[in-house]
This record gives sequence, C-alpha cells and structure tokens, in this order.
Amino acid sequence: MDKKTYEKLEKYMRSCMQDSAHDVEHIYRVLYVALDIAEYEKDVDYDVLICACLLHDIGRKAQIENKKIAHAKAGAEMAVSYLSGQGYDREYVSKVEHCILAHSFRKSGGILPESIEAEILFDADKIDVTGALGAARTLQYGGQVSEPIYTRLPDGRIADGEEETEDSFFHEYKQKLIKIYDMLYTKRGREIAMERKAAAVAFYESLCREVDSAFRKGAARLDVTIQ
Amino acid sequence: MDKKTYEKLEKYMRSCMQDSAHDVEHIYRVLYVALDIAEYEKDVDYDVLICACLLHDIGRKAQIENKKIAHAKAGAEMAVSYLSGQGYDREYVSKVEHCILAHSFRKSGGILPESIEAEILFDADKIDVTGALGAARTLQYGGQVSEPIYTRLPDGRIADGEEETEDSFFHEYKQKLIKIYDMLYTKRGREIAMERKAAAVAFYESLCREVDSAFRKGAARLDVTIQ
Repeated sequence: MDKKTYEKLEKYMRSCMQDSAHDVEHIYRVLYVALDIAEYEKDVDYDVLICACLLHDIGRKAQIENKKIAHAKAGAEMAVSYLSGQGYDREYVSKVEHCILAHSFRKSGGILPESIEAEILFDADKIDVTGALGAARTLQYGGQVSEPIYTRLPDGRIADGEEETEDSFFHEYKQKLIKIYDMLYTKRGREIAMERKAAAVAFYESLCREVDSAFRKGAARLDVTIQ
Repeated sequence: MDKKTYEKLEKYMRSCMQDSAHDVEHIYRVLYVALDIAEYEKDVDYDVLICACLLHDIGRKAQIENKKIAHAKAGAEMAVSYLSGQGYDREYVSKVEHCILAHSFRKSGGILPESIEAEILFDADKIDVTGALGAARTLQYGGQVSEPIYTRLPDGRIADGEEETEDSFFHEYKQKLIKIYDMLYTKRGREIAMERKAAAVAFYESLCREVDSAFRKGAARLDVTIQ
C-alpha cells in the first residue's frame, strides 16, 4: 500500500470514530499487532489487511446509536460503499468486507474468518481485550454504560461473575474476557495473548480479594455495632 | 447506634446516590473498612463514624451536575440540614459535619481531619482508590467522562502519566493514585493500603508494557509496508 492510500483510508476511518473505549488508539493497536502477527504468516495481502484493520470498527457509531445493529455488519457495508466509491476493484473490496464482517464476536450472520487476513484481524482485535488493557477497556466501557464492577447476590455475597446474570465487570470477565485466549486463530496471536493473560488474571483476583476483604468481616462488625 | 437509626440514615443516603463509580457499594466498602480501622483505634465515637461514612458522598450528585461544587462541602451542608431536621443535637451534627468536610482530597476550605472519626473516614475513603479496586473505579469514572486510558505526546510516544497534562488514566495514576499510600492517617489504614499497593503497581506496569509493545515496533512495521 502506498502512503497516500494509507493516509486517505486513515482520514476516512477517523471521520467515522467517536467513543473513547473503541477510539482511534484501539485502531492503531489492532493495526500494529496485526502487522506483528502477519510477520509470522505466509502470503498475507497487506493491502487488504491494513485497510481492514483501519476500517474494522467504523460501524461502532451505528451500534452505539442502535444496539440492535451489529457494528461488524454496519462497518462492512460502510466500507464496501466507501471503497467502491473510491474505485477499488470488486475482489479487493470483497476481501476487506469479509475481514470486517468476520472480526466480531457477535453473530453477524455467523461469519467466521476464512482468509488469513480475516484471521489476523480477528486475533489482533481480540488481543486488545486480553491482559490489563482488556480489563481497562472493559471497565471504561462499563463506566460509559453505567455497569457496576460487581453485583451482589440476593444473600448479600459478592457475585464472582460465574453465578449472576446481571451485567458487571466480573460477569464480563468470566463470560468473555477469560475465554478469549482459546479462541484465537494464529500461532503468533496466541503467543501475544498468552504473554498478557497473567496480568488479567492477577487483576481480577486482586479485585475479588479487595472487595471480599471489605465485605467479609464488615457486615459482622456492623451487626455488633448497631445492635 | 441502634438499628432503626442506622436504617433511617441508610435510607436517606440511598435516596441521595446515583452514579456507578461512587455508588452505594462504595459507601458500604468505606463503612466496612472504617469499622476495621476503628478496631485498632481508641475512643472512637461509632455513632459519629457510621453516620459520617453513610453520608460522606451524598453531595456527589451536586458536584456531577456542577463541577465547581465541592461534593464534601455540599454533602456536609446536606447532612447538617438533614440531621438537624431529624432532631440530632448540635454537637453530634457538628462532628459528622467535620468528618464529611475533611474526607475529600479537594480543598474544601483547606479542612484537614481533626478527629479520630474524620481520620478514619478519610483513610477508609482513600483506601477505596488503592489497589486494583482503585484502578477499576478510576477507569469506570474515565469511561463516564470520556477520559482515555493514555494520551500520546506530540512525537507519537505514549505519555506515561508523568509528562503530559491532559486527563487520562495514566495521568490520574501518576498524579493521584500512586500518591495516596503516603497520605493516610491511621496505622491500620496504611496497613490495608499497603496490602493493596502491589496490585495497582502491577496493573499499571502491565498496561504500559502492553500498550508499549504494540506501539514500539508497530509504527516501524507500518513504515516499511506503506512506502
């Protein structure tokens, strides 16, 4: 890809972004991690990969405005429309479209990555929810949508994320974050993710311990005091 | 304090709360940690302490609606008005007022804790921004006000929180979170905080490492590809 093409795509991407957890920094991290993974793979079409990385989240805004919209699907449609309008050939546009459609966890018509570029984008995007960064981004998003760090069970105990169904950081961690490590396609992607896993686990365990230490004896102490 | 009094104060507190990072769970953690600290101190007036813990953040809503308002000052005024109306005697109300006024970092007329109850509340409240929990709460708040995890310096490097002046999680960590450990008044408070410190440091360092690992080689890899 030549520099001018890159800058044009970058400019279009920036014009589509807005929120802070999925902001442009996420896009650059995904792009950079994708280039790292790509070094370990054969026959990667960098024009497709770079374009797909830059544009993979342009449908986020649509999803934020209407939760029923899948951002991968919306973003793929936007990308097809934009790239076609810019005169890119149909095969290239279709390859980028597939990468964007297949990058999301959500079922966007059940599309799984079928090209090496789609696998790399999927992994690079998921790696951004691994480790400390994944926890940080999830907590930021939780703040945006007023999701608590944890919830309490009817008996007052702290729900650890396994048991409860309500949204919380603990729930997101147990139901999603900790399961990512087994979902990646590329060897290098798994390697990067595994380097980060311990940080996420340690953070979650520290959180549990700190919350639990306040609550474990607190209620009993209070009962003694307010009799 | 008798149970009925506690439940009445608790009900009033709940009617004043709203946001998720400083929500009622924070109040209970502060109360429980305060009771822990109190066990190690002499001559603690538990009626004052419990009441002050429950009501210390009731001014948050006013501060969220108008940033110029200091929540400690607003909360103290609300508490005085509420408690006086409930027939509590002036000396008791004044002791609670002092605790609430002196619990905040912000300069609310430069008031520092002058009673053991005020010191305990200050420490218990600050302990809730130590450790993994402090990082989690700060990130949640960052999401609410659209603050990024990190910012970049003009030359593209990741700002580590020391150098930049813009608001970010890294900035908050370096300017506030990591400085709390030396600010506590009580021995037990410092002990609890120090038990949690390693988790906060490890989390921040993991975050830096993860972000840096994506960026360090990413830009160079991109330069090679888009020549």
